[in-house]
Amino acid sequence: MVPAARRLSFWRWGYEDVLPDPALLERTLASARAFFGEHAVSAEPRPAPRLEAISLPPPRVSLPAALAAFATIDPHERARHTLGRAYRDIVRGLACDFSCAPDLVAFPEDEADVARLVDHCAGARIAVIPFGGGSSVCGGVEPRVDGHFTGALSLDLSRMGRVLEIDAKSRAACIEAGAFGPAIEDALRPHGLTLRHYPQSFEVSTLGGWIATRSGGHFATLQTHIDDFVESIRVVTPKGTLESRRLPASGAGPQLERLYCGSEGTLGVITRAWMRLQDRPRFRASASLSASDFLAGARAVRALAQSGLHPSNCRLLDPVEAFTSRAGSGAEAVLLVAFESAHHEVDVDLERALACARDHGATLRESTTRDGERRPSQAENWRTAFLHAPYLRDALIQRGLLVETFETAVTWDRFDAFHTALHEETTRAVFERCGAGIVSARITHAYPDGAAPYYTVIAPAPRGHEVAAWDEIKTRVTDAIVRSGGTVTHHHAVGRDLRDAYAREVPREYREMLAAAKHAVDPAGILNPGVLLS
Amino acid sequence: MVPAARRLSFWRWGYEDVLPDPALLERTLASARAFFGEHAVSAEPRPAPRLEAISLPPPRVSLPAALAAFATIDPHERARHTLGRAYRDIVRGLACDFSCAPDLVAFPEDEADVARLVDHCAGARIAVIPFGGGSSVCGGVEPRVDGHFTGALSLDLSRMGRVLEIDAKSRAACIEAGAFGPAIEDALRPHGLTLRHYPQSFEVSTLGGWIATRSGGHFATLQTHIDDFVESIRVVTPKGTLESRRLPASGAGPQLERLYCGSEGTLGVITRAWMRLQDRPRFRASASLSASDFLAGARAVRALAQSGLHPSNCRLLDPVEAFTSRAGSGAEAVLLVAFESAHHEVDVDLERALACARDHGATLRESTTRDGERRPSQAENWRTAFLHAPYLRDALIQRGLLVETFETAVTWDRFDAFHTALHEETTRAVFERCGAGIVSARITHAYPDGAAPYYTVIAPAPRGHEVAAWDEIKTRVTDAIVRSGGTVTHHHAVGRDLRDAYAREVPREYREMLAAAKHAVDPAGILNPGVLLS
Repeated sequence: MVPAARRLSFWRWGYEDVLPDPALLERTLASARAFFGEHAVSAEPRPAPRLEAISLPPPRVSLPAALAAFATIDPHERARHTLGRAYRDIVRGLACDFSCAPDLVAFPEDEADVARLVDHCAGARIAVIPFGGGSSVCGGVEPRVDGHFTGALSLDLSRMGRVLEIDAKSRAACIEAGAFGPAIEDALRPHGLTLRHYPQSFEVSTLGGWIATRSGGHFATLQTHIDDFVESIRVVTPKGTLESRRLPASGAGPQLERLYCGSEGTLGVITRAWMRLQDRPRFRASASLSASDFLAGARAVRALAQSGLHPSNCRLLDPVEAFTSRAGSGAEAVLLVAFESAHHEVDVDLERALACARDHGATLRESTTRDGERRPSQAENWRTAFLHAPYLRDALIQRGLLVETFETAVTWDRFDAFHTALHEETTRAVFERCGAGIVSARITHAYPDGAAPYYTVIAPAPRGHEVAAWDEIKTRVTDAIVRSGGTVTHHHAVGRDLRDAYAREVPREYREMLAAAKHAVDPAGILNPGVLLS
Repeated sequence: MVPAARRLSFWRWGYEDVLPDPALLERTLASARAFFGEHAVSAEPRPAPRLEAISLPPPRVSLPAALAAFATIDPHERARHTLGRAYRDIVRGLACDFSCAPDLVAFPEDEADVARLVDHCAGARIAVIPFGGGSSVCGGVEPRVDGHFTGALSLDLSRMGRVLEIDAKSRAACIEAGAFGPAIEDALRPHGLTLRHYPQSFEVSTLGGWIATRSGGHFATLQTHIDDFVESIRVVTPKGTLESRRLPASGAGPQLERLYCGSEGTLGVITRAWMRLQDRPRFRASASLSASDFLAGARAVRALAQSGLHPSNCRLLDPVEAFTSRAGSGAEAVLLVAFESAHHEVDVDLERALACARDHGATLRESTTRDGERRPSQAENWRTAFLHAPYLRDALIQRGLLVETFETAVTWDRFDAFHTALHEETTRAVFERCGAGIVSARITHAYPDGAAPYYTVIAPAPRGHEVAAWDEIKTRVTDAIVRSGGTVTHHHAVGRDLRDAYAREVPREYREMLAAAKHAVDPAGILNPGVLLS
């Protein structure tokens, strides 16, 4: 696990002392050279930005003495709180573009500090950007705020990172919003419990960030988002602190927690939540199957999602993705199915799932079952590779490659046409802008009524036009998504980057309702302005 | 199923031509006499109110010619749209108290009619009360509106009751809000599909009502409320018609559908929804177990709810409830567990559940498994008795008995103390007000972090003070619920009757957010005024 002394990089994904596996990097660069030509990959990595070379704008605001103790203008912290961790953020970081740095970064120690900071900022018209781990890939934490504000304060919750209370009987825990994934699991493990929420950002993101962005988690079916595990929350707003009641369920009015899931910091600063937990799984069974192609594999995924079996993993890789992740030969799509339980063996469940998948055209490649808390080493390897992939991405970006992902969701009736159109439009956009590229696809989460496809793009970036190129590709892709009936995001949030597309996805009247609800608790509009709503 | 020509009673539960089984009624009355004494049960039933004897206030408003065709001032319809179907409603009906009748009842044929009616009412300051089947037990459809309004229109959606489209691939259907339970199932059955939502009001309530009130459904675990099955909705508001996108899931902002689940007509008139469906189950297995008492049974329920097995039924009856429903001797609590699937046998699942329940102190009484679409006859009997119980209730009320239910939910850590305190407080209140009474309990829905206990009260009603007596009991019970950390309703909604208690359950700031969101789409405040928010 991560010692407290380690620092998060101010410009790239993750911790300063973590680098991608050199052999994996070399292999990937060699593949890119073979695929795109020697010229596509720089011989040397573009140098990491040095803090000394960055000119941060001078802070426009300061805090009164009583609050100043929580805040800093330290350049490392200001720079680290400027950009998220999307492709366009890494490229801008490499170009030393930190022009919209927050004026201040505050590190409250408890909820009372948060309330005092928010109160002051409301009075002084300082924009407040709630900040967890900073791994946003949609401009959610970037202080891109307009002249209406006197300045911007990045409100970093990371010093509020404790598991405060564990209720083993109800299998729930009260956790501070600034708690990072590993710290949560460390605190729960001795109790035989787990939150079991593993977004790719697990090591570098926080509970508050997960809730605010409706983060997608461990389970591929049934309870796919953090939303289902939020039992109650506490939120600081300029008009007061809200706390919802700990309840397993209720029918009393629209559910408060659901209004805050996906609120992205615009409706208040989440300070803590009671979260529903799982017993730590002990029994595991998994299998990999193959299908002739992605759409054939999707038919098996649909059958599984509609079977009522609720596999914990049900992930489909298209042939390219199977090849690049070393899960397949590249000739076929690969379907990974897994079950787990703390209470009973899951062999029967896997057998039922395999029968179902075979009935729908998939072929078994291999299966394993395990009794005991340790994962099969193959799964452990996959998990490490999954969590470390963004480190690899950033090293590839330094070599001049454009690497980015996006995700959506759509109902089954239009899945085939949607995927085909989206894959084509993405490929076309990438080729037109970059001259070459690889677009691969997977299904990350599956539902009875649809699925969430996830796309990875890798291409030679046009030198000097990296941000513009990706923005153009992303705009075309997002247009295609909105046009074809998908959602602009399945689990990466809207932020500032997708705000205009979001406005086309949801009705105007609903956005006006959200704006009115926001105004009721944030009349000065200081909470993460520009995110979700304009 | 129910022929269209049948009429719903204007004062009591359900259809005019349905009466409780006479033998069952006699048996129940005999028990009541034995328990409470001869005097507690009237020799003759209090006569049903005759329409001619009711003096309805003259309508204060009328509609312009273009809209008048959809509306009526027919006394039967005005009376039928006056009260809900709680105990206090039946008693007021018997007393011919229909003083807050709506001025008009409108029956729009399509969404355009709804929009025109809402527009007119917004301009003319006429309160609009969306009305489905009228089975509300919390004052949700009663036009109890203040002098701010020129009048009240009950907007009855029952002519918009069609299943418009079925998407078998995504297992979803687009259904009009006014569709009653049986009509929905009739339309889906030929496709091998089912909504599988069976509130006790199934035959006399509508899809729109279920969504607006967060109705509790068939599944005892996992997906207990209608909320989980709403894929998208259309809603008419005075500011325009909203439609959400059909999506299996999304991470784009707070979920629109969740704001409308539980909105109880205050944020708009739901006109249709795409609903997630199930394949019709074919395999079934069920068992009944016994436990020494209710709290011992609740330990087995908790273990089952935390096992990851997700039984479709997991219902615990306390000894009294087991006795009165003829499921047990009255010496023990009875736990009913069932599994079902359209895709695979469920014997293994039941075996696992039985092992789990036995490990937690429950004893098997009997189990059955079935392959085939028909339910075991025992389950069919139970279902019929369940759906017909309110008919029996109303006949008992006519004999002078007070019969009512209420429900809540609470986390497991306080379940035992909560149930004990609530049962005691209810019993004390009933005895103080009625001199005698029986309070029985069951668990209707179970969660990993808590459960929903459901209470039934039967007592000799103090003659002439029936409404006041129940209001006093209900107030004391609700106070105890709020004080002890429960929710004022698990699946019966808030309405007007629980509004003040709701205000103590959720934070003021949240109610202000809801009020602001309402104002954005209903600036004149005409939509179901007095419900949820004051």
